[in-house]
Amino acid sequence: MAEHNYDVVVIGGGPGGYVAAIRSAQLEQKTAIIERDKLGGICLNWGCIPTKALLKNAEIYHQFQRAKEWGISYENLKVDWAKVIKRSRDVSSRLNKGVEYLMKKNEIASISGTARLLDRHTIAVTGADGKETRVTATKICIATGARPRPLPGIAYDKKRIISYFEAMVLPEVPKTFVMIGGGPIGLEFAYFYNTFGSKVTVIEMMPQILPLEDAEVAAELKKSLTAQGIEILTDAKVASAEVGANGVTLKVQQGDKTKTIEAEVALLAAGVQGNVENLGLEQVGVTIERGFIKVDNRCRTSVDNLYAIGDVIGPPMLAHVASAEGIVAAEAMAGHEGPPMSYDNIPSCTYTQPQVASVGLTEAKAKERGPVKVGRFPFRALGKALAINEKEGFVKLVFDAKHGELLGAHLIGSEATEMIAELGIARALETTNLELHRTIHAHPTLAEAVMEAAGDAFGECIHQ
Amino acid sequence: MAEHNYDVVVIGGGPGGYVAAIRSAQLEQKTAIIERDKLGGICLNWGCIPTKALLKNAEIYHQFQRAKEWGISYENLKVDWAKVIKRSRDVSSRLNKGVEYLMKKNEIASISGTARLLDRHTIAVTGADGKETRVTATKICIATGARPRPLPGIAYDKKRIISYFEAMVLPEVPKTFVMIGGGPIGLEFAYFYNTFGSKVTVIEMMPQILPLEDAEVAAELKKSLTAQGIEILTDAKVASAEVGANGVTLKVQQGDKTKTIEAEVALLAAGVQGNVENLGLEQVGVTIERGFIKVDNRCRTSVDNLYAIGDVIGPPMLAHVASAEGIVAAEAMAGHEGPPMSYDNIPSCTYTQPQVASVGLTEAKAKERGPVKVGRFPFRALGKALAINEKEGFVKLVFDAKHGELLGAHLIGSEATEMIAELGIARALETTNLELHRTIHAHPTLAEAVMEAAGDAFGECIHQ
Repeated sequence: MAEHNYDVVVIGGGPGGYVAAIRSAQLEQKTAIIERDKLGGICLNWGCIPTKALLKNAEIYHQFQRAKEWGISYENLKVDWAKVIKRSRDVSSRLNKGVEYLMKKNEIASISGTARLLDRHTIAVTGADGKETRVTATKICIATGARPRPLPGIAYDKKRIISYFEAMVLPEVPKTFVMIGGGPIGLEFAYFYNTFGSKVTVIEMMPQILPLEDAEVAAELKKSLTAQGIEILTDAKVASAEVGANGVTLKVQQGDKTKTIEAEVALLAAGVQGNVENLGLEQVGVTIERGFIKVDNRCRTSVDNLYAIGDVIGPPMLAHVASAEGIVAAEAMAGHEGPPMSYDNIPSCTYTQPQVASVGLTEAKAKERGPVKVGRFPFRALGKALAINEKEGFVKLVFDAKHGELLGAHLIGSEATEMIAELGIARALETTNLELHRTIHAHPTLAEAVMEAAGDAFGECIHQ
Repeated sequence: MAEHNYDVVVIGGGPGGYVAAIRSAQLEQKTAIIERDKLGGICLNWGCIPTKALLKNAEIYHQFQRAKEWGISYENLKVDWAKVIKRSRDVSSRLNKGVEYLMKKNEIASISGTARLLDRHTIAVTGADGKETRVTATKICIATGARPRPLPGIAYDKKRIISYFEAMVLPEVPKTFVMIGGGPIGLEFAYFYNTFGSKVTVIEMMPQILPLEDAEVAAELKKSLTAQGIEILTDAKVASAEVGANGVTLKVQQGDKTKTIEAEVALLAAGVQGNVENLGLEQVGVTIERGFIKVDNRCRTSVDNLYAIGDVIGPPMLAHVASAEGIVAAEAMAGHEGPPMSYDNIPSCTYTQPQVASVGLTEAKAKERGPVKVGRFPFRALGKALAINEKEGFVKLVFDAKHGELLGAHLIGSEATEMIAELGIARALETTNLELHRTIHAHPTLAEAVMEAAGDAFGECIHQ
């Protein structure tokens, strides 16, 4: 009999955890996964996936509103809101079943319940019925994720002040909606509800929306969303939020001015915090820093058989980062030496319309390191963009001035989130402007803007 | 006074010619371009661009037909066909104006008329008024393109047997439509007219539609287009085509059987031929082989100051190839040593829905060179594909079995033509399966299928 029940137990079934479990199984580790709610975690059940289903629904509706541009007409356009919400939930359900299937296929034991470490090899699992069972493991991977963070003085009441959980299943479209936070989550819901008829206001504390993105891209998105009818306040702070019978009243400070904003609902999307509590981490001696578990580039914690991945180890808190960490951790746990985790080349996406996507350094960050050359190309100068009537946005590329290495790519436009893949692999392979500019891009495609922007940086752009 | 009027004269203003002119101007050559019709050539005026405008219109209409899936309803859906056609023409006009602007901006003389070489430095230009003028140039670049090729016994009458010129401006949607040729042009019009209500039949001589594409992709597209209601006959040859008062009667041979097909209109899209006639090429001694001008990898013809690019030098006859050749030729003409022309890494796109895109070797071609590993990933297993309700198709990657170098990429799916850009740069940089698999791809995106297919080839796919 083996010393422990499992070689690897993963705590948390999100995009970090279930990927770590699958990779562990591929490496012939006897593996179990413990999840207190649904496999797939926030991403699949309450994050990336159901919101993208909603957002695509908004895009389709938006296309219908623009039907005249296409010579198409109709009468009596109607939206069945319940169906919009249901479709999004159905997509999550189907993927949740898909992850369940992957667990079975890979012979991973799926344990339902809430986990707590008793010692560095033993986990107590409390089921929905309150009963506790114990499992032991040689290696344990903590992938418990994160949750929305309230702001001082602004508590979630889940009715008037809500998080993304409630925002994606509202029973009807609010007439007025305030997004507290102009990051991806706040802006995606702003785009979605504005398209379906809410009067939306976005309040962002920083000088720009999408504070982590390149300033030019953020400015372009602000311009576009404003033109769509969304009110955006930057450098603005919510001083107080008072819940009443029919809505919420916000006092917003912007510079010297205080503004009162009334809305039926406010989404608080101003950050998340790691799920580090009640896991027994302190008992077994896992180091926690600023609310997140501390790990090295193999996702090892301070306790040598304990690993941690995903949102619980801190930013960048993105599903694809969690999955990548899951693979690195699984390989480390199995003693299989793969590439370590690197954070130099992580794409970031915002699924508004226009979409925003980036990878690598912003122009500002790149300039801190040395001289750069910047190339830009607007979609409106591109045949494909005119053909599909999606003329907004541009590609901006930042190159090292001396060797022409691609340092950062910043895209805004209708398919930016798909286009960023080219720049990700380009950065991974340390491409130069010449390689990007001279690689033949299919005509007509939006991706030609990448080639042209690379040319522009060094004065060789053809179509501008 | 200089010996000649211009350093460089380009004959033909298509995507090869006008790009060659711009690059020449960038390299400080005194440049002129001669065009007998409209700047932008077939691609911009009668090819890539206006067809993509039409195809997007079909996609939008198709979305309307699927509105129920999105919880959206309407009554009395109508298409204003004249507007559909007009929008496509307007897009071409706008881009044509754009090229005119680029000529001015780059100080390129734009000469309207039909060119003929009198000697290796002198060109006679006949204007619309029949008057002839002469220009001389140190270097001349021939970029006269190609035109649709009739089949033996099947002549274009431009009413019942038409080419792509007529197909994109038909006054109404034919009830029945036959496409002779199952390449990209035939299939794109098949998708377009089928969506708008024609009963469409495609006749392809070869055993598969898209004969140059990977067999699995072609089979998947055939399945999908058939499910959409298009009848596709492969291994089928048009033996005769008889034009009557109300349509055309085709005798089609498929194996032992002969079939009679009646249709209002037949599109003959079975290839093109180079525009090599009446240019004076023979007089100046330019070598022509099998109907195309022969050039080396700097686009030099057999006459040392004459260059040729684009469709007139033969396959692959694609706008993006012509543009790339335009840059190579311009640099060679200016004595500026850039990278030579290479044909190893040319993307190919078909804009049906689902779209098809590829770069590099098919599995069959790759196997001729040595052992391969093939990875596949279906879109239906991807969160983004479910979220946007585009589940058809897959990514197929072919790697060299020994070193894992990417040899070919074959995509079919809703955004395949944009996704191929990643694989193009990946091939340009000689990527391996591990690099593709371990480069973090944004979640949720369709591009994750590339990462997963790379994993699948070597047994490390996570989501399958």
